[in-house]
Amino acid sequence: MNAVASEEAGAAAVTLEELRKKMADFARERDWEQYHSPRNLLLALVGEVGELSEIFQWKGEVPKGLPGWEERETEHLGEELADVLLYLVRLSDMCGVDLGKAALHKIDLNARKYPAGPGCRPSKKGAHCSDDTGDRPDDCGDVVAAVHTNEIKKEHAS
Amino acid sequence: MNAVASEEAGAAAVTLEELRKKMADFARERDWEQYHSPRNLLLALVGEVGELSEIFQWKGEVPKGLPGWEERETEHLGEELADVLLYLVRLSDMCGVDLGKAALHKIDLNARKYPAGPGCRPSKKGAHCSDDTGDRPDDCGDVVAAVHTNEIKKEHAS
Amino acid sequence: MNAVASEEAGAAAVTLEELRKKMADFARERDWEQYHSPRNLLLALVGEVGELSEIFQWKGEVPKGLPGWEERETEHLGEELADVLLYLVRLSDMCGVDLGKAALHKIDLNARKYPAGPGCRPSKKGAHCSDDTGDRPDDCGDVVAAVHTNEIKKEHAS
Amino acid sequence: MNAVASEEAGAAAVTLEELRKKMADFARERDWEQYHSPRNLLLALVGEVGELSEIFQWKGEVPKGLPGWEERETEHLGEELADVLLYLVRLSDMCGVDLGKAALHKIDLNARKYPAGPGCRPSKKGAHCSDDTGDRPDDCGDVVAAVHTNEIKKEHAS
Repeated sequence: MNAVASEEAGAAAVTLEELRKKMADFARERDWEQYHSPRNLLLALVGEVGELSEIFQWKGEVPKGLPGWEERETEHLGEELADVLLYLVRLSDMCGVDLGKAALHKIDLNARKYPAGPGCRPSKKGAHCSDDTGDRPDDCGDVVAAVHTNEIKKEHAS
Repeated sequence: MNAVASEEAGAAAVTLEELRKKMADFARERDWEQYHSPRNLLLALVGEVGELSEIFQWKGEVPKGLPGWEERETEHLGEELADVLLYLVRLSDMCGVDLGKAALHKIDLNARKYPAGPGCRPSKKGAHCSDDTGDRPDDCGDVVAAVHTNEIKKEHAS
Repeated sequence: MNAVASEEAGAAAVTLEELRKKMADFARERDWEQYHSPRNLLLALVGEVGELSEIFQWKGEVPKGLPGWEERETEHLGEELADVLLYLVRLSDMCGVDLGKAALHKIDLNARKYPAGPGCRPSKKGAHCSDDTGDRPDDCGDVVAAVHTNEIKKEHAS
Repeated sequence: MNAVASEEAGAAAVTLEELRKKMADFARERDWEQYHSPRNLLLALVGEVGELSEIFQWKGEVPKGLPGWEERETEHLGEELADVLLYLVRLSDMCGVDLGKAALHKIDLNARKYPAGPGCRPSKKGAHCSDDTGDRPDDCGDVVAAVHTNEIKKEHAS
């Protein structure tokens, strides 16, 4: 399936493996594999996260769905989100990590760590959740974490 | 397909849409949608990129495939790569951006910008784009860019 | 002046040069100079920026002065801000850049680029600079930039 | 002391307080204070860290002192380092944190955490050092940390 066909017909079915292959082909065809060391790619990823942040930097709080954004700006956002993804896919590949598998595994870990139900009071997290705080009852840390209930109240009051 | 089945049998076929749905379900089941504003998710993404960087920070140059890394460390790496991906997927969803479609589109744009073949001398791109690279023929910029030929030589000589 | 004295009496007079020297001494006394290559330090800086972001990630918009924050949290914030600064100081030193001088120079550049007065309509700047803002008279870009007037209005309306 | 004088004569004596005042004046004179909320400034800082990373992204390992870099590139680096510093100074100010004092305090904390002498085997760290791992004998974590001795050996061998 070529890019145009997939873009038109099956974008919803884009797999991480498909992106990995496209990135690998892209680099090989341009003789750019020599530059794609893990730390080079990581710094390139950081650069793209910076560009993504610049889109949001002066906006104050932005509501879901980006109401009022011009189409041109949303397109630009899509490009920066894509850039981050593509470098992440390439970095994972160069590290020998199956990104799709890793993502499913992490979702499983998170589901065990934060059982469903609003009774969980997620922590605002620290970076340490995965290693050493998984067994503290009020630590609900990582990927989709939120804030301590009292922190939320404080914010709403302020 | 449940998570276990997909992890075992079809990880290679993990789609971005599948991850998007899982993240949406995860947040809804925990009543965490209220915290998933675009800028909250963006800062959480930056946090995860920080954790990813910490894995590589004191290592000096790291060869492809991570020879000599302990399994425990590679697992940790997989979790941090996954965290970045999951927040990126969720951020895209909250912005109304189809991440898979955006990625395919960006690959197309890059293919037009940097025609295949080693003859292209990709720019190292960078923060100075606005000044000096917008119209230079050797500016081959973004996602999978590399370095000016003379820069490469310089490095190899140093 | 030792650290305690300067902390108590003259913190307002902390110079970048003083911090540079302290960081250099610290590394030398522990035989850690060998690890302080520019890219190692840069990735460590990114790691600290990640930790800084984690403090703000689930908070929604945070008003100036951080009203309602607990002292413990503000202390933690101070430590993360300091970590970013200290790595930045050390990175600059390892690159042979006089950070204080560079900062004064950049302020001068910014002052020329954005003449004082509210008449200037600063650009939100961003990743698209290379395409469309390099030569537009209303591009007032960088360090202390803000947003297009119409963007501000849009936000206030939304 | 005006900027020119300080740049020529006393750059080594640049204080964080001086930079804080200059940034405050700059924003007030342009009516930009309205945009300088903590999270806006934090995202702007992330954007500048991204630009800083782009300078290093395709270079592979870069030796101290940046041998072989063109003057133009080193100047650009100085500007990006300065941008990160200036946003960090402004963010600290808007959070009510005395950055110079925080930096001296953090150096003191680090000195206690990692007693001088090469006998310390610094950890490659995790983000959690400051909170919860300070009492593990082999955790030498944060600001100027390095790597486990055996990690270093492994790298040199690989």
